[in-house]
Amino acid sequence: MPKDTVAIQGERGAFSEEAARQLLGRSAQVRPKESFGAIFDSVSTGECYYCLAPIENTLAGSVYENYDLLLEHQLHIVAEINLRIAHNLIAFPGTSIGNLRQVYSHPVALAQCGEFFERHPRIEKVPYYDTAGSVKMLAEKRPRGAAAIASRVAASVYGGRILKSHLEDHRKNYTRFLLLSRTRKIAAGSNKVSIAFATRNVPGALFKCMGVFALRDINLTKMESRPLRGHPWEYFFYVDFTGSVRERKCQNALDHLAEVTSFLRVLGCYKSATRH
Amino acid sequence: MPKDTVAIQGERGAFSEEAARQLLGRSAQVRPKESFGAIFDSVSTGECYYCLAPIENTLAGSVYENYDLLLEHQLHIVAEINLRIAHNLIAFPGTSIGNLRQVYSHPVALAQCGEFFERHPRIEKVPYYDTAGSVKMLAEKRPRGAAAIASRVAASVYGGRILKSHLEDHRKNYTRFLLLSRTRKIAAGSNKVSIAFATRNVPGALFKCMGVFALRDINLTKMESRPLRGHPWEYFFYVDFTGSVRERKCQNALDHLAEVTSFLRVLGCYKSATRH
Repeated sequence: MPKDTVAIQGERGAFSEEAARQLLGRSAQVRPKESFGAIFDSVSTGECYYCLAPIENTLAGSVYENYDLLLEHQLHIVAEINLRIAHNLIAFPGTSIGNLRQVYSHPVALAQCGEFFERHPRIEKVPYYDTAGSVKMLAEKRPRGAAAIASRVAASVYGGRILKSHLEDHRKNYTRFLLLSRTRKIAAGSNKVSIAFATRNVPGALFKCMGVFALRDINLTKMESRPLRGHPWEYFFYVDFTGSVRERKCQNALDHLAEVTSFLRVLGCYKSATRH
Repeated sequence: MPKDTVAIQGERGAFSEEAARQLLGRSAQVRPKESFGAIFDSVSTGECYYCLAPIENTLAGSVYENYDLLLEHQLHIVAEINLRIAHNLIAFPGTSIGNLRQVYSHPVALAQCGEFFERHPRIEKVPYYDTAGSVKMLAEKRPRGAAAIASRVAASVYGGRILKSHLEDHRKNYTRFLLLSRTRKIAAGSNKVSIAFATRNVPGALFKCMGVFALRDINLTKMESRPLRGHPWEYFFYVDFTGSVRERKCQNALDHLAEVTSFLRVLGCYKSATRH
């Protein structure tokens, strides 16, 4: 299996494809899949070497389904990237802003362009399963007076015309993606660790877990919680911290954390992406 | 405005309606709305006295949209309830399990009945906007070979027949709902507090916030984070803890928390619901 095969969720031209090419190079073999579960499966079964999973957006929040899939599969985070999300209004010949009646896109993208729809109340928002998929549909069916919201790459892949760029309400709109592999690999210069753990059900349990890091001056960059299925009102925690599993201090912190948790897994150690 | 008006998201017969009646009594005037935003708006504008918002499910996790709406509106949490979620397969005359081809429901409900669909691979799952709404649609349109997954109350409201009860994979399936009002009211016996805060951007910030509670032996029951919009890679935190704002210890903890945070809001103080 070639090492440049990468599964993404969504159609060709999705933001995931752009992120994959920035991480793996322009010649990466991108394999579009229908669902997040399918991209994890494709790496677990060996069909693809990597998959690229969006994990959080700075406006919409975490992609909780992918947090759950990280624990359901035995993959390793080997890299991350923060992609600037810029939305474009894309149409095909015969449609202009003047005769526009419907705009198709993923519900999150539609929600991130709320001000455009407030200024044009006669234009209907139509939820679609994928941003790039909505451009593909327009290219095939050519409905009259319809446009899509998607990436610049999606416009180029399907031959659409950008009627208006930067449709998003907030310019500070980034999505963080994780590159996952079945093979554990720690790149030189890795300075970030992602872990998942479950606390013991005792008072102050989470405080003790935070202390493991704070008492060693290790900085946490993200914390997330998800329900522990079958154990109502108990939770898994996901934490990202600055450091490398090859540093003694971080290894001590992980050993200490194992003492105060009922479950602990290192999800990966990789180079921190630029934070714009 | 009568004090027994309560806005819920979804159609009549939704799990929210059952929760509302358990909290406010059988004669409560339930006002169905299309979206979570609409139920918060209806209380903010004074149209309804209360709204009831699902905030977490023990299998699917938090309802993040409602966490965001808590901060966007100035409402107060005055009560909570944990409702056992039991899914029923509901159909109308002419449809039995033998001739069933399609099952309509909300995607979360379909996902929670995965084992039924694995045992019956020829039955198609059809995502619908609402559990009770799918029963209402069947009652009106009577498509052949179609059923819905919804509550027992939904079957009764629309005159459907329960073909099979307890379709859910996990019996330990509970949804926690919050009752919200424009009027701040702390009921006698209140023993739980919900707050939201933003940490200062310094190392160990979250550890200091946790310490405020741990050092006073105050137990945290839930912690959630959401992105701070316009500030990429910074987060709001939501915490529930055991105690009352009328106790000196908790008041001291809140004063202490104000010292180490850049934003702090008490969302409500109310009686903790039974945890089954």
